[in-house]
Amino acid sequence: MIIDKITLAQSEKRFLAQLINSLAGIRQVALIGTKSKKGNENLAVFNSLIHLGAHPALFGLISRPASAERHTLGNIRETESYTVNFLDKKYAEKVHQTSARYPENISEFTEVSLTPEYFQDCFAPFVKEAEIKIEMKLQQILNLEINNTNLIIGSIERIYLPEERLLADGFVNPRNLLLSCGLDAYFTGKFAEKLAYAKP
Amino acid sequence: MIIDKITLAQSEKRFLAQLINSLAGIRQVALIGTKSKKGNENLAVFNSLIHLGAHPALFGLISRPASAERHTLGNIRETESYTVNFLDKKYAEKVHQTSARYPENISEFTEVSLTPEYFQDCFAPFVKEAEIKIEMKLQQILNLEINNTNLIIGSIERIYLPEERLLADGFVNPRNLLLSCGLDAYFTGKFAEKLAYAKP
Repeated sequence: MIIDKITLAQSEKRFLAQLINSLAGIRQVALIGTKSKKGNENLAVFNSLIHLGAHPALFGLISRPASAERHTLGNIRETESYTVNFLDKKYAEKVHQTSARYPENISEFTEVSLTPEYFQDCFAPFVKEAEIKIEMKLQQILNLEINNTNLIIGSIERIYLPEERLLADGFVNPRNLLLSCGLDAYFTGKFAEKLAYAKP
Repeated sequence: MIIDKITLAQSEKRFLAQLINSLAGIRQVALIGTKSKKGNENLAVFNSLIHLGAHPALFGLISRPASAERHTLGNIRETESYTVNFLDKKYAEKVHQTSARYPENISEFTEVSLTPEYFQDCFAPFVKEAEIKIEMKLQQILNLEINNTNLIIGSIERIYLPEERLLADGFVNPRNLLLSCGLDAYFTGKFAEKLAYAKP
């Protein structure tokens, strides 16, 4: 079947959101931990984490203007500190629940029963239950004027992970980590194959 | 274990690339089809496709400066046309092989034995073997000065997909589509659960 631009423009809002979001495919779920200057802890689910480069090590994150992610953006702007947390698939319900629109003074950690944890001098909280935890430092927020979303660019400051996940070639094994597609479907990755460096 | 910034800076180049790339997690693989004004067809594998918004329907794509993706960027800049193609897991080897550095006048379609296909007035070729094919139109190329990567922003013009993949709520089922993690590992998604809209 063919879905053209006119059909898209005429689609009901939530149908369209589900369609375009799921069309972009399966992506690993990141829980982003932040804290406001006032001390309010915040936790939000993102599936728009992207690798921007290794040297320096940079990740990007898309924050949409009207979403539950807006407290995250505000806190990052204010404190320049955030954490990326990857969780086992068994936490799917708790992770999903962080997407509800809680008021700013309510901590999603408390509401979904995940535990904030602090390491070294990082201002933002990590998620104790996470398998892999990354300390991030804000480098830049780029406003994408075309639809008023923001690209948050941050540098990787420290990575906390179980030693057995790091393979000799640098590969971080994503076994059993939670993935998502669209607004509400959760997956895990099933390993297919590892291929040699491609040469012409 | 803890990997800090100093350790990262001292890591061997390919180890670091694998580490940071795989750390960003599993993502669905997109084959991007383009054609130069001169008529050279090009096909390149990306795993940095991101959903930017549904209304208007926009996808982003990260293109790194020194990568095999550079012909893709050039062609998109020149013609404003490209296609996003999602393939079944059985095509993992062909998909991976498109990442080899072929000269500009060599078509990856021919080299990896995938078939270019043209629909309507779209200048760029689709991949005949793909399960889901999307016609894209360039809206903007944003240079990220921090590391000289480019964010390609495009609008979704037409979507071609098997009717049975589109569910009633707009969800596009990613069953058996190829995912990747890091530089060389391929996966598929294993469905875990679909959860209700989260409310506080």
